[in-house]
Amino acid sequence: MNVTGIVVEYNPFHNGHALHARQSKIKTNADIIVAVMSGNFLQRGEPALISKWARTKMALAAGVDIVVELPYVFATQHAEVFAQGAISILKEIGANAVCFGSESGEISDFTSLSTFIKEHEKTYSTFIKEALKEGYSYPKASALAFKKLDQQHEVIDLSLPNNILGYHYVKAISEQGAQITPFTIKRTNAQYHDQEIPEHSIASATSIRETLIKKNKQLTAIEHVVPKTTYNELKNYTNMYDGFQNWEQLYPFLKYKVLTADLSQLQSIYEAEEGLENRLKNIITNTISFQQLMEQLKTKRYTWTRLQRFCLHTLTNTTKEDMSIRENTCPYIRILGMTNNGRNYMSTQKKKLGVPLISTISKLDHPFIYIESRATSCYSLGYPSSVQKKLIKEEYAHPPIIV
Amino acid sequence: MNVTGIVVEYNPFHNGHALHARQSKIKTNADIIVAVMSGNFLQRGEPALISKWARTKMALAAGVDIVVELPYVFATQHAEVFAQGAISILKEIGANAVCFGSESGEISDFTSLSTFIKEHEKTYSTFIKEALKEGYSYPKASALAFKKLDQQHEVIDLSLPNNILGYHYVKAISEQGAQITPFTIKRTNAQYHDQEIPEHSIASATSIRETLIKKNKQLTAIEHVVPKTTYNELKNYTNMYDGFQNWEQLYPFLKYKVLTADLSQLQSIYEAEEGLENRLKNIITNTISFQQLMEQLKTKRYTWTRLQRFCLHTLTNTTKEDMSIRENTCPYIRILGMTNNGRNYMSTQKKKLGVPLISTISKLDHPFIYIESRATSCYSLGYPSSVQKKLIKEEYAHPPIIV
Repeated sequence: MNVTGIVVEYNPFHNGHALHARQSKIKTNADIIVAVMSGNFLQRGEPALISKWARTKMALAAGVDIVVELPYVFATQHAEVFAQGAISILKEIGANAVCFGSESGEISDFTSLSTFIKEHEKTYSTFIKEALKEGYSYPKASALAFKKLDQQHEVIDLSLPNNILGYHYVKAISEQGAQITPFTIKRTNAQYHDQEIPEHSIASATSIRETLIKKNKQLTAIEHVVPKTTYNELKNYTNMYDGFQNWEQLYPFLKYKVLTADLSQLQSIYEAEEGLENRLKNIITNTISFQQLMEQLKTKRYTWTRLQRFCLHTLTNTTKEDMSIRENTCPYIRILGMTNNGRNYMSTQKKKLGVPLISTISKLDHPFIYIESRATSCYSLGYPSSVQKKLIKEEYAHPPIIV
Repeated sequence: MNVTGIVVEYNPFHNGHALHARQSKIKTNADIIVAVMSGNFLQRGEPALISKWARTKMALAAGVDIVVELPYVFATQHAEVFAQGAISILKEIGANAVCFGSESGEISDFTSLSTFIKEHEKTYSTFIKEALKEGYSYPKASALAFKKLDQQHEVIDLSLPNNILGYHYVKAISEQGAQITPFTIKRTNAQYHDQEIPEHSIASATSIRETLIKKNKQLTAIEHVVPKTTYNELKNYTNMYDGFQNWEQLYPFLKYKVLTADLSQLQSIYEAEEGLENRLKNIITNTISFQQLMEQLKTKRYTWTRLQRFCLHTLTNTTKEDMSIRENTCPYIRILGMTNNGRNYMSTQKKKLGVPLISTISKLDHPFIYIESRATSCYSLGYPSSVQKKLIKEEYAHPPIIV
């Protein structure tokens, strides 16, 4: 039985994601596709456009067999931790392949890079530390360190978001001793950060979100770039929840939090470093939107993503103490949804799991679960009060979606 | 020079308040009327309908010479602490009389009660403790203790809000050794809790607020029960701030705070006792309005006011530690506004003050100032984002209003 893992956000699911799932299946000759998907908050420190449940339905309707949640404590972190969490879940669930999209498209680039860096690990981390000291962000520092390490080596551009993730998947597989073969598919057409919807059928998730949020929920404008089932789900979603989630809806709560917390409370927030909390407090009083806040907060020293993640942890009250208990592997498997095919696989697999398999989070008492449900409470507060309760309740009681 | 103090909330200023100011002036033969006024949050644990600055203008236009702020740390507390703060300000500012409205209307009732209780202080406090243990609220417990103390004595009904305040003014005068003579005026016509606007010219502040908030800002409906200047100020205010403040506008922030704070953070909040924080956390997830929350939170054990104050301190992040530094007297005098008459008086008086006189709060570094401005930040967040900055800035930089 070939089980292939993919690591996804599906924010929202679109034709490019469907293509990636199909290509992964073909390339790895997979019987089962397992998607490890971030929950309500994403790696760039943003809320998902639509809830984890709606995104799960989209994925199951378009070729994914099992959707497992990547917990908040991994999903909202830089590539290294993100990848550790995702690979540990895939290892536990019995995946024997992982297939990721990358700008490079050549798996040998990643494996040789991983081997090379392993051989020069100490030098590499010294270089990273030096670059961090000089004020560069972590991704930039890694890229610089690598360039410095070997000008001769065939370097993948590690400042590209999918390359750096790919590198860390391969690294995590090796570190965790997982029996997982890595594959990569070259990303085509849509660039990650494109903001306009193209005429052909593949668009970036960014452009889809921009269209849905800024251009007044114009669903028809994105109809040709998402599967039919996704389109219907998006339509249902706007009817049920009166719109999509985005940072602007959560901004008033962030502002409230920052203005009422004292400095020691802000300093206890994860990723509060070097007076960033002070800077946030000084700036937020004078801003009236999240966009405005971010523009004023941005400096050369910090990436937009780094700052957005700090804002997110402030919003969700995620402290350094909360994150200090993070392990490198995920301590449970939370299934968000399965097809019949996926369910058959899980019924054979579940006895072999080394960590608890949870159908609803109310079944397990773990600090990560508490952090997850707190994050979902925040997420729900961006919606009209009439549906908040439903969203919060779902977090505790929603069983996996079976299609 | 006769200086008479009155202790007020003016939420909002109305004909009954104007009458009280005039009667106080006549009864005490006053040259100067000093109003000690609560800031943006009030004794019942509610936000003021309109900001402290707008209420100051109303007061100065209707017979008050000086408006001094009663800081949050006194203004949002039960009668004893509230009165200690107010009397200490009046003592410092050189008032030789205080004149309060009461259901009783006879000052001898208060002075004899005060003397009597002083003589039986130990027994009295034992009785209060016993009643508190039985689960009664503090006001109810005081009333019961007193009844028990002497069935024969002419008892004022201490469960009536103005009687209990009056008693504590008289008590605070005695405790602080203030050279202040207490006077009282019988409250007429409007009952404190009336909800309907009467046809005559005196209405309760409660009925005015209800009309303005619930009945869609019907200013004309309250025109005959407020001075012309108040009416114009209310009109200005709705134009400038797009409406009035009330708990419903702040409820989303309270909900956010309770859902994201962990239990130890909630336990650190002032007035979090006996698992009240747990009860709040359990209930708030399922409510969609402040009214609904309060109705579900209410038990026989706690008064509505007690619970509302706990919600307020949770909202403003006012902790037990913050309140532990509270002294029985106010450590500064913050003038919110003066008439020319009031200014002349203050210019002779200011050299004699034993505490700092502050024109803007940015001039003093004191924990109470920090608590005050944090409360104002909360208050401002209930308004549209376009005016929040103005309200927060005013708190720091607004000089006293001079008319």
